[in-house]
Order: sequence, then C-alpha cells, then structure tokens
Amino acid sequence: MKNIAVLLSGCGVYDGAEIHESVLTLLALSKAGADYQCFAPDIEQMHVVNHLNGEVSAEQTRNVLQESARIARGEVLNTIELDISQFDALIVPGGFGAAKNLCDFAVAGSGSKLHPEVERFIQEFVLAKKPIGFMCIAPVMMPALYPNGIKGTIGNDSGTAQAYTEMGGEHCDATVEDIVVDIDNLVVSTPAYMLANSIAEANIGIEKLVNQVLKMIR
Amino acid sequence: MKNIAVLLSGCGVYDGAEIHESVLTLLALSKAGADYQCFAPDIEQMHVVNHLNGEVSAEQTRNVLQESARIARGEVLNTIELDISQFDALIVPGGFGAAKNLCDFAVAGSGSKLHPEVERFIQEFVLAKKPIGFMCIAPVMMPALYPNGIKGTIGNDSGTAQAYTEMGGEHCDATVEDIVVDIDNLVVSTPAYMLANSIAEANIGIEKLVNQVLKMIR
Repeated sequence: MKNIAVLLSGCGVYDGAEIHESVLTLLALSKAGADYQCFAPDIEQMHVVNHLNGEVSAEQTRNVLQESARIARGEVLNTIELDISQFDALIVPGGFGAAKNLCDFAVAGSGSKLHPEVERFIQEFVLAKKPIGFMCIAPVMMPALYPNGIKGTIGNDSGTAQAYTEMGGEHCDATVEDIVVDIDNLVVSTPAYMLANSIAEANIGIEKLVNQVLKMIR
Repeated sequence: MKNIAVLLSGCGVYDGAEIHESVLTLLALSKAGADYQCFAPDIEQMHVVNHLNGEVSAEQTRNVLQESARIARGEVLNTIELDISQFDALIVPGGFGAAKNLCDFAVAGSGSKLHPEVERFIQEFVLAKKPIGFMCIAPVMMPALYPNGIKGTIGNDSGTAQAYTEMGGEHCDATVEDIVVDIDNLVVSTPAYMLANSIAEANIGIEKLVNQVLKMIR
C-alpha cells in the first residue's frame, strides 16, 4: 500500500491549513486506497485569527502541531519524527498557514524563506526523488526547494505569480480544475481555494493532484 | 436552488464539530448542486482539548461560533439569525461538540438536555416539517426533539443505544454505510465516525444521508 505524508500548518484558512483542502486531500487518498500520515512542525503559529471577523487575537497563541491534530483526529506526527523510508510521496495543502507558519511569504513576499525545520522535512522528499503535491498558496515554497527552476501554479493572481517568478520559478496560469505537472522534478500543483468558488470546484483539482502524485510514485 | 442549514459545534472532534464529517457534508451538498449556510450558537465551548494528547487545557476557553467559522471559511451565522423561510432542511454533523456544546449528553447521558438556544434553532425546522439529518453522536439529541418517538441510529455502541432508548427513541443498529430514515418525521441518521475506520468509509454514509435529506424536501 502506498503511504503518503501530508504536511499541515494549523487548522483554519486564515492562520493555519485550509481545512477543506486538507480534508479533501485525505478523502482522495483514502478513496484511492492509499494510506496517509499527517505531519506538522512543533512551532507557534505566526498569529491566531478570529475567523468570524478576520481580526488577529493579540493575546492568543496556538501551536501548529496541536492545531493540526484537529484535522488529523489526533493522528499527527511532529515533522522531526519523519522516517523518509516509510513514505512514497508528500502533499502540502494550502491556507494562510502555509504562507505564515511553514514559510514567511505572507509578510516577506518574494524575499520569503521556509522555516528551517519545514525546509529540512520537505528536502528529504526532494532528495529522495519522491513526488510532491502543493496546492493553493503552498507552491510559493517551491522555488526555494528547487533552485534550478520549477514549473508550478498558484492560479492566476498576477502579484503572487510575479513573486513566484522573481523567486526563480516558472509560473503557469491555471484554472481551479487544472493541475500543473513538472515531470522532471516530480512536482504537481493546483490552485484550489486560490480560485475555487465552491468546495465541489476545489475538490476537482485536489482529486486530480492526489491521483497524479500517486501515479508518479516509482 | 435548495438551501440547507448546517449546524456546527466548534472545530475538532474532541471538543467541537468533527471536521471530516462537517467538510464531507458541505462537499456532498455542493456536489448535489445545493446551497448551504453554516450556523453555530454564540456560546463558550464546554472545554478546549489539546488534540495531540487528548488533555483538557484548563486555562483556555474558545467560542463555538468563532471556532465553527474555521470550518465555514468565515461564512457562519449565529443561530439567533436564522430566518427559517430561507432554508429547506438542516444537517447536524457529529463530534464531541455535539454532545458537549449543543447538548450535555457527554456528561449527563440519558438525562441530557439540549442547550436552550440550540433547541429553539432545531425546533424551527421540526415545526416547519423540514427534513433534518443527524450524524455520528448528534442523534442523541433526537428523542428530546421528537417526544412522540423517533427512529434513529448511533451505530452499534450498546451503551449509547441504550441511552437513546431510555430517552424515548427507537434505536436501529446500523453499519457505517447505512442510513436510518424516519419517514414520518423526515429525519435521517448515519453512524459516520461512531464506526468509520477511514474517511472514505465515513463519506459513504454521509453522502447517502445528504442525498436522502435533499430527496425529502417538499
């Protein structure tokens, strides 16, 4: 049975992993008969957002690993526990957590850096030539991971696409139903909620991404 | 277009709405071409559970409406804002939030009462003879809402089934792929994560429940 790592970044679109994208990823993996294991780094969230009014709760702190455990029904591992030999591929859902906790794109734009522990974790998959899927805003981490160039999509937002290019990536505009595949690097991306107007729409691209990642496993 | 209310109880299986069940409900509604609106009561959670180790965080409080907004991507209404004329049906996902925040079954068992505002909200659908779907542990609220008897399922857990019977309901054992329909009362229930061993398994019953609820709309 194929075993896929899923990297979460909290629990909630505005300060963590996008919940629909994360759950739809797990659903597509489960429907395809693959096993999965959620991971998250044991770090504090950049901040906590009240999702009812969009305001930052100045007095609150939440831990990325603990909040990710909500999406994983408790079954989440700290990224430092990764045994790469046990996994065939990696998928990274989006949400602002990807751009605030896994890297600092939300504040640094094209000057963004990955969190060192997150970079170490993903690099294990890159170095082992295992396929990786990035969705929504998560592809902004790709140029730093593949310095020799990487084809990817964040949808069609021109500012984000430009930042992706400035970081050294090759951006391809895509619709919510599209996936963009970089065959040489074994990387798939899809816009998901960068463009989706409904959860059924988001699901189309996410299901395609999951199935393409599974297909590229050697 | 059919418009369905979804009643959430927080965000996370151990102290709120079960995230997979909630998202799969929204997905099934969206795939069926129905519109939906999430609701939650503006009350404090019974407690906050660290989903990594299962421990209650004694010093933390979280608000059911604010946390539910995470699952709803910000688009959640306070239950007091319900205009029943705008909705065709109601669906209530499970998770401990249903048994801790919407009612007190988790501590009171068969002596359980619904939170008054939650009872008022659901009663609007009962009185207007609009179909309702309850999943996972949420069916323990049904006997109080239908005092003349109500057929339903919480799966096959004998203790919970007995409590359901003691409260005046008629319990039917069911598998994770089954739905139980009370035609006279327009109520559907399914075990979901009371029994599911995987998210794909949970999805089968949830999709059936959603489609049955939609079918019963007059």
